Amino acid sequence: VKSKVVGVVGGMGPAATVEFLARLVRATPAEREEEHLHILIDSDPAIPSRTEAILRGGPSPASRLCSIARGLERAGAQLLAMPCNTAHAYLAPMRAAVEIPILDMVAETAARVDAGPVGLLATEAAVRAELYGKAFASRGIRVLPLCPDDQAEVCQLIASVKSGEQLEALRPRLRRIVERLERDGARAVVIGCTEISLLHDSGSRLLAIDALDGLVEATVREARRGDR
Amino acid sequence: VKSKVVGVVGGMGPAATVEFLARLVRATPAEREEEHLHILIDSDPAIPSRTEAILRGGPSPASRLCSIARGLERAGAQLLAMPCNTAHAYLAPMRAAVEIPILDMVAETAARVDAGPVGLLATEAAVRAELYGKAFASRGIRVLPLCPDDQAEVCQLIASVKSGEQLEALRPRLRRIVERLERDGARAVVIGCTEISLLHDSGSRLLAIDALDGLVEATVREARRGDR
Repeated sequence: VKSKVVGVVGGMGPAATVEFLARLVRATPAEREEEHLHILIDSDPAIPSRTEAILRGGPSPASRLCSIARGLERAGAQLLAMPCNTAHAYLAPMRAAVEIPILDMVAETAARVDAGPVGLLATEAAVRAELYGKAFASRGIRVLPLCPDDQAEVCQLIASVKSGEQLEALRPRLRRIVERLERDGARAVVIGCTEISLLHDSGSRLLAIDALDGLVEATVREARRGDR
Repeated sequence: VKSKVVGVVGGMGPAATVEFLARLVRATPAEREEEHLHILIDSDPAIPSRTEAILRGGPSPASRLCSIARGLERAGAQLLAMPCNTAHAYLAPMRAAVEIPILDMVAETAARVDAGPVGLLATEAAVRAELYGKAFASRGIRVLPLCPDDQAEVCQLIASVKSGEQLEALRPRLRRIVERLERDGARAVVIGCTEISLLHDSGSRLLAIDALDGLVEATVREARRGDR
């Protein structure tokens, strides 16, 4: 039995897709080149904005996401991963569009949290769509809301990462938000946006659960399920 | 006019493909997500070994490389890039297999060298196939051969990078080879293997021409040709 061919619905944003691939290669138990996973990636930065669609009624990305998923399936993918938390608002139509499984980054990540309350660093759209809210509510874990200023700051940081700003200069701004979450009683913080995964460093004492790592682990696990 | 969709023939090795993508994202002039390039990647680590085929008569990777190129073309790629120097020994059959252009990493890199003699860090197979040798000979630039021990050491370093060893521990071994090239009169060193691109640091005084950067620049240039 060989590992499954992994398809990646990417480009949201491009740097986050690259970081996902980098962590996936590092996390794959492989001593030789051919033991790595076969990965097909469609990194399409022109997928309509998830944030615009959810917050301001902009064009929905659903049909483009479904078409990318079908294209990857047609090209031979046997399992799909999508390194963008907010795009998981469209997971249901995507799953209906293909025969192959699509990993749920939000569910995989929420399952890694043992106890609340948790802080959540995510787009305003992901918060509004209650992606993590629902996943945690079903397990009785409370999410501490960010104050409006901090949520706006998180959105600005995400935009800055997407526009290619230097990460080092942005990190102190994220650190201050994490410190406030810790003072407010958070037991952990969920890095629920792939751009924030690029930005977060492990300098804080607060336990960080990174959704990008959750997706990486799930991808390796499911791709190799049944391997011998 | 939109940028061309870029297809990447990848997986040789997986970490080098990720490094290519990371540099490509950084090198793309884009202030917003949608200004990045649309990239399709087939990262297949099970492509038959180029080195085994060229040095020891192992199975040829040509048919698999052609099939990946055709698959990317079918999926919508309008331009192909292949971040593996040694695989360029199969560029001619690949070009015959598709209608779309395939960038020539070796030619792009050789064109960046102004004067010799140059040192070359490449696989034994790439040296034997004279990929850079021919490109430089046509321009009257002399390539300094590595001594057999140093060439064997370069091959070992490449294998170590492919097997996921820590880069920091390997770097001093590469640095010693570069220093010997400098003492032998090299005016520049060509990083002609993508695994060595991961390993090389700019600590040495000798001018380094990195083939991975040559391919990145050519990809951005050709993908955006005709953009407005």
